[in-house]
Amino acid sequence: MVHVLSALVENHFGVLARVSGLFSARGFNIDSLAVGETEDPTISRMTIVVHGNERVLDQIMKQLSKLIDIIHVEDLTGYESIERELLLIKISANATNRANVMQIVNTFRGKVVDLSPKSLAIEVTGTKSKVDAIIELLRPFGIIEVVRTGTIALARKLELKLSASRTGKKKSAKKKTSKSRQ
Amino acid sequence: MVHVLSALVENHFGVLARVSGLFSARGFNIDSLAVGETEDPTISRMTIVVHGNERVLDQIMKQLSKLIDIIHVEDLTGYESIERELLLIKISANATNRANVMQIVNTFRGKVVDLSPKSLAIEVTGTKSKVDAIIELLRPFGIIEVVRTGTIALARKLELKLSASRTGKKKSAKKKTSKSRQ
Repeated sequence: MVHVLSALVENHFGVLARVSGLFSARGFNIDSLAVGETEDPTISRMTIVVHGNERVLDQIMKQLSKLIDIIHVEDLTGYESIERELLLIKISANATNRANVMQIVNTFRGKVVDLSPKSLAIEVTGTKSKVDAIIELLRPFGIIEVVRTGTIALARKLELKLSASRTGKKKSAKKKTSKSRQ
Repeated sequence: MVHVLSALVENHFGVLARVSGLFSARGFNIDSLAVGETEDPTISRMTIVVHGNERVLDQIMKQLSKLIDIIHVEDLTGYESIERELLLIKISANATNRANVMQIVNTFRGKVVDLSPKSLAIEVTGTKSKVDAIIELLRPFGIIEVVRTGTIALARKLELKLSASRTGKKKSAKKKTSKSRQ
């Protein structure tokens, strides 16, 4: 089963290495990962898509939430959520078949972002399955390059609030540090 | 100076941990990272945005290109490229101020992807600076959640071809392995 994890993390160096290390240590492959700043530049949000053994994932989630730099982590699976990813794709297209490509692009509400006599670059957003579908439809024209962001997600009702969860975690993080220094 | 790195990697577990480990070992913070499958499901593409000392980055690039699971890595800085990122943002908006929000969303060619009596979820794509700008404009309404994919990029002329570079790397990788086994 595919799981979409959303984590708020302190924007420190090494956090990504520690998080991805937890997964690889248990032989878990990450299907996709996207990390970027939130509205607070000291905090980033990671969206991680994984699939694998539920019990192991459960252990990883527990370990993740213990990492000091992780403010909050949530498995969005089971919550109603809005999932989107961004695709940039460059394909072969000349004056002859450009109209056929455009028909597909328009159907998927994509945008042409670059054009050359022999190629076309397209931007599309949608769920993973929508992005998979347009790639398959464009494949026969000849794919030159594909770049995907991987899924990001917003839970419809659940709110991963920055301030509240951060304060809570920071306090406990401080406690931990002072203990370990004793 | 900000650098946008694009890397084709074998879709094995542990690759992300090794790549991010190289950066953190040198105290380099990753501004954003997005990794997703390419048109070939055994190969993923990572887009990494970093800033920092040029000399150290140069060393990291050399180390990256030596990792067996990395098929090809390129610093897109200096090449003409198309850069985009995806933003999902949930903000407070009720019947009274929804029209004001919509005006901003339409100006940025965003889409409303969810609506409740007290909130609005919006999807926008654009360059990092465009995404930064809409976040600032929406901030006064009250930001509930922000998720960004981080930048992904396509070089306008340069082509990071999967097949050619992969074959080349695989051969040299094999050589390396056979040597180390001797």
